[in-house]
Amino acid sequence: MPDSPVNLDEYEPLARARLPVEVADFIAGGAEDERTLRRNRQAFDRWALRPRVLTGVTAPRLHTNVLGQPVAMPVLLAPAGEHALSHPEGEAATARAAAAAGSLLIASTASSLPLEAIAAAATGPLWFQLYCFSDRELTASLVTRAKTAGYRAIVLTVDAPVLGRREREIRSGYAVRRRLHRGNFPDGRQGSFDASLTWDVVPWLRELSGLPVVLKGIMCGEDAALAVEHGAAAVIVSNHGGRQLDGAPAALEVLPEVVAAVQGRAEVYLDGGVRRGTDVLTALALGARVVCIGRPYLWALAVDGQQGVGRLLGLLRDEIATALTLCGRAGVDTVDRSLLSAGGQGPAISRERGAADR
Amino acid sequence: MPDSPVNLDEYEPLARARLPVEVADFIAGGAEDERTLRRNRQAFDRWALRPRVLTGVTAPRLHTNVLGQPVAMPVLLAPAGEHALSHPEGEAATARAAAAAGSLLIASTASSLPLEAIAAAATGPLWFQLYCFSDRELTASLVTRAKTAGYRAIVLTVDAPVLGRREREIRSGYAVRRRLHRGNFPDGRQGSFDASLTWDVVPWLRELSGLPVVLKGIMCGEDAALAVEHGAAAVIVSNHGGRQLDGAPAALEVLPEVVAAVQGRAEVYLDGGVRRGTDVLTALALGARVVCIGRPYLWALAVDGQQGVGRLLGLLRDEIATALTLCGRAGVDTVDRSLLSAGGQGPAISRERGAADR
Amino acid sequence: MPDSPVNLDEYEPLARARLPVEVADFIAGGAEDERTLRRNRQAFDRWALRPRVLTGVTAPRLHTNVLGQPVAMPVLLAPAGEHALSHPEGEAATARAAAAAGSLLIASTASSLPLEAIAAAATGPLWFQLYCFSDRELTASLVTRAKTAGYRAIVLTVDAPVLGRREREIRSGYAVRRRLHRGNFPDGRQGSFDASLTWDVVPWLRELSGLPVVLKGIMCGEDAALAVEHGAAAVIVSNHGGRQLDGAPAALEVLPEVVAAVQGRAEVYLDGGVRRGTDVLTALALGARVVCIGRPYLWALAVDGQQGVGRLLGLLRDEIATALTLCGRAGVDTVDRSLLSAGGQGPAISRERGAADR
Amino acid sequence: MPDSPVNLDEYEPLARARLPVEVADFIAGGAEDERTLRRNRQAFDRWALRPRVLTGVTAPRLHTNVLGQPVAMPVLLAPAGEHALSHPEGEAATARAAAAAGSLLIASTASSLPLEAIAAAATGPLWFQLYCFSDRELTASLVTRAKTAGYRAIVLTVDAPVLGRREREIRSGYAVRRRLHRGNFPDGRQGSFDASLTWDVVPWLRELSGLPVVLKGIMCGEDAALAVEHGAAAVIVSNHGGRQLDGAPAALEVLPEVVAAVQGRAEVYLDGGVRRGTDVLTALALGARVVCIGRPYLWALAVDGQQGVGRLLGLLRDEIATALTLCGRAGVDTVDRSLLSAGGQGPAISRERGAADR
Repeated sequence: MPDSPVNLDEYEPLARARLPVEVADFIAGGAEDERTLRRNRQAFDRWALRPRVLTGVTAPRLHTNVLGQPVAMPVLLAPAGEHALSHPEGEAATARAAAAAGSLLIASTASSLPLEAIAAAATGPLWFQLYCFSDRELTASLVTRAKTAGYRAIVLTVDAPVLGRREREIRSGYAVRRRLHRGNFPDGRQGSFDASLTWDVVPWLRELSGLPVVLKGIMCGEDAALAVEHGAAAVIVSNHGGRQLDGAPAALEVLPEVVAAVQGRAEVYLDGGVRRGTDVLTALALGARVVCIGRPYLWALAVDGQQGVGRLLGLLRDEIATALTLCGRAGVDTVDRSLLSAGGQGPAISRERGAADR
Repeated sequence: MPDSPVNLDEYEPLARARLPVEVADFIAGGAEDERTLRRNRQAFDRWALRPRVLTGVTAPRLHTNVLGQPVAMPVLLAPAGEHALSHPEGEAATARAAAAAGSLLIASTASSLPLEAIAAAATGPLWFQLYCFSDRELTASLVTRAKTAGYRAIVLTVDAPVLGRREREIRSGYAVRRRLHRGNFPDGRQGSFDASLTWDVVPWLRELSGLPVVLKGIMCGEDAALAVEHGAAAVIVSNHGGRQLDGAPAALEVLPEVVAAVQGRAEVYLDGGVRRGTDVLTALALGARVVCIGRPYLWALAVDGQQGVGRLLGLLRDEIATALTLCGRAGVDTVDRSLLSAGGQGPAISRERGAADR
Repeated sequence: MPDSPVNLDEYEPLARARLPVEVADFIAGGAEDERTLRRNRQAFDRWALRPRVLTGVTAPRLHTNVLGQPVAMPVLLAPAGEHALSHPEGEAATARAAAAAGSLLIASTASSLPLEAIAAAATGPLWFQLYCFSDRELTASLVTRAKTAGYRAIVLTVDAPVLGRREREIRSGYAVRRRLHRGNFPDGRQGSFDASLTWDVVPWLRELSGLPVVLKGIMCGEDAALAVEHGAAAVIVSNHGGRQLDGAPAALEVLPEVVAAVQGRAEVYLDGGVRRGTDVLTALALGARVVCIGRPYLWALAVDGQQGVGRLLGLLRDEIATALTLCGRAGVDTVDRSLLSAGGQGPAISRERGAADR
Repeated sequence: MPDSPVNLDEYEPLARARLPVEVADFIAGGAEDERTLRRNRQAFDRWALRPRVLTGVTAPRLHTNVLGQPVAMPVLLAPAGEHALSHPEGEAATARAAAAAGSLLIASTASSLPLEAIAAAATGPLWFQLYCFSDRELTASLVTRAKTAGYRAIVLTVDAPVLGRREREIRSGYAVRRRLHRGNFPDGRQGSFDASLTWDVVPWLRELSGLPVVLKGIMCGEDAALAVEHGAAAVIVSNHGGRQLDGAPAALEVLPEVVAAVQGRAEVYLDGGVRRGTDVLTALALGARVVCIGRPYLWALAVDGQQGVGRLLGLLRDEIATALTLCGRAGVDTVDRSLLSAGGQGPAISRERGAADR
């Protein structure tokens, strides 16, 4: 490929050249003014990493595990609907790339392929992201199918009782979505999300599935504590990639509050704004066990299918390894708060280059 | 309409395409360098709203009341002069749209239509905004007419003993104003504002009208306390939309100070910079009972008359409902300071998109 | 004039259209990266003024006095060399405009006209700005001439033992300066500044002149205290308009420290970055007795000679009066720290308009 | 030269006009998003220097010494590879310019010329920068050669166990590097850096060389203390010019922490972002004994060889002298923390000019 990306950010423009603008905007967009979307990324810029020297660290350990499941690097692929919008092979390509890299795909309820087909294509472990519908029977059947197909955890999205106002989609009259086959609903029956969901859903899901339940979309300490009390095995700190409540804090900003509330009783993951190996380490230093990436792998999928996602994960792995080495850490398990410079010590330095930075 | 706005901000460019530039600049402009005008909006960006999950909230209550008057949503239409500049039906269209949406128009002393005509057109409650003239007899006659016409409160503007220097108007030699019929002064007699107004005016107005008196333009705790002591039923924290003292704080910035000074003895409303449902909730969380919007409805009026204002209020109502749901609040009456992230926790995120936000 | 400026900032572009670029850059420029030049202005944006209402203030008092000398407004014209660069009538025009407005010109050692000619043209009081030369005899003769000509104070510039690196001048090879007649040195004898000047110069000047001595260029509390101890009657907090040490704080930033050190034993004036009536009030609220303006009157002089300077002073006077009224202050003598919002309470709002501010 | 630079920043555009773009980008570039690269410079903008007046200081002392070695100004030339990329005479030109200015070149392991040739060309003292290779014998031979050739200190770079991701080089497929003769490795044998280096290397080098050992790339107090404990004579606070860990703090930001940890037991130098005389004084005020400059002299070398570097050092010397004089300091030895305004007192003022700064 003549224009081989050298970092995660470079996939988006390449993907846009291959995608209809309304699909690209569907992927890229956030709610309303997209303040939270931007804030997710800018939150990383407030932290600095402290280099250490002469530690003798050479090939740092990148592997860890999530709910007992080993992963080769502290990065999961966040649930995202309809991968076939990016590439004809859809989730099959993503799942294979994730497995090859030792990462883990959280397949979406809104996948292009049926969850069974994704499981069949995958050569590694999968988790299943669940939207809970008003039709509880339909929901239960999805959970049962996922369990049967070998998915190892249920990731319930809790931050979408109603959809946020994604104005790019409203403006573009985005209809691609509807033209696509929804993999998990061959008969078209799907219904609407259960907007009146309460905490009871957590024990219900645990019992129904016999699998660990992960809650995605936790954004404050109080809800993190409630999640633990209702039996969640892990929480994903996430604002849905800035697609739900515009004006919400960055996921990274609330991570410390969630970690403090959980008190080690559940695992904590971070989703939102991760684009660099140093971002991954920053999240880990603030208490995340792993991070999730979303949009970047959809762009990579559009650029070069399975190979694109594989190469993207390779870039990120290399960045993590380099950053760990330069911080003198022997492994991701040794990363703690001392990796970071005290907050606010330095100015937030934008990633945009100004005129002075030629 | 082919270019249907999806948020409040989108009305301005559409309106500008329909209005003479000097009228648009008259509406849009602020005093001097327009720092306070910008500050009114940027103040909202310093706060973040905390999403809550699994609360079971579905259709949150948006209604509240102001001075005992029920409104369907916590949004009033701020007084603004000469609606006929925006649309030939003038205040009649605005009043009908406000009533249809369950909002409430505060009709201006400087309305295009006589206050009686506005009252005749309106299908809902009205308040009357008063400028106090040096000619106290003329002032008294206005108050009496408003009372007779059924207006339910007198909103005295207190921040304009002299006019701020609105340089856009000075530059454009804005004269449209003078060519228009001033609805409430058919004989042309109007005179100048009473620049030497003091607190005595409040009991005088109460006695004269027998109506609750609201003071608009309170910008510090000391004056809020004085307002209460002189019998004001409510205060509107406002810097006149940045049109008076450039260099004044944002209305939102002084809201907490005013709320603290009032100590529940009067109602407190917020006027200035509200453009989003999340802005409304931020103001409510900081102690406002309702907010006022001004320029947005003038743009919507220019774009599509009564229907435009109606649609704008519908958009804002939808945004408030979505934000309440995503924050897990059952109604506007349950909004309190815990809705917000501690000030200064995150960086202020601009609503302008930078090059990095494609 | 078809393009009549509505504020002080608008004079610069009009003046630039009339001046050779190297002259305009000589006036506009600061040292090195011009950080201190910008900082002088931006420092004002960190403060907000608190409006007060229903105070009954109508025509606030703008007059005050400096060293017992009445002035109609709290604004002096800072010393600036060679007014003939801006207008053929040079300092004669400026002095007449200052007098007409009830302000006061501090004539520069480097004036285009001899100090006696300026005094002859002036219809109001003058002060004399002194550079102390290595040739002490020459210096003494200047002081004696100023005293004889009726100047009422000696303003010694203390921040220029060497000249700052003004790169615009270096780049443009600015030579206009040398081609001009130096009014006070008809025989060309001038010599260099005395770079080794110490505090002894203050009592020497007092004794020599019998006039009050003002020190211009004080930028810290320690030096302000030393100034008082050596008999200075007033100090001007100034960084030479950002033309000397680039990297120095804004004049406004160090004003409170100087006021605290002086403890009322001398008058304190502020020079640097004042462009608005609200800037004047901000400086007064932080303890300045009056402010000085520099570049703006040179631009106004270039635009329209005496009339231009007069009009500029009129604009500034109107802005001060409006701001005082809207802050509910009966006169400049009632301005104190309570006029301002606590520092840092709000974000600094730039005076530049962004894309969002159409 | 018609386009004679008036400050250090002006050399880069002139040099770019003479260099292949991939060479210029190799010199200019930093790691990943170049945040640390920008941060190195922006860190200086957070400090302000306090002018002092009437001190009688005229010709301030600029000389100091490093490890007992006198230098005429507190500025060293940082190690940088392959000067022949900038100018055919390579390090010979740089060394002569450094000596002429009374500065000191730290010659790089990766020099274009053999270290012996640099020593032969130099008319002043030299230090030798060492990369430690996996091949310890090769490393030892370099040290022995440097000692024999008269180099007076060994500067071990400790922040590059692996190379940072310099994306400009990756993108440009930068290969110039390989086409060039590596001066110190005539037989092409060089091998890779020893990524597993530990603190033992410090005493090993001391013993081997009998020279003082300086550690370059220290970025926290803990490592500074370890450096002292292992016998380093000096540490250079540096993040490798932003070329290693992107996301690291600015060198200036960690300087105070390093100075505090060292407690006077070793000398501390600052490398990163110095472009102005005031930057030099800021670093000295925060505890650095001297600073290093890197990219600027490579640009100057490209522009005009030895003469270019000499002129650049002259400009910097003049700026330091001017700043010292305006701060009333008799010499660099009198610079201490009182030179600076308290951190955070003022806003960081960008060196970029905005639209308001015409």
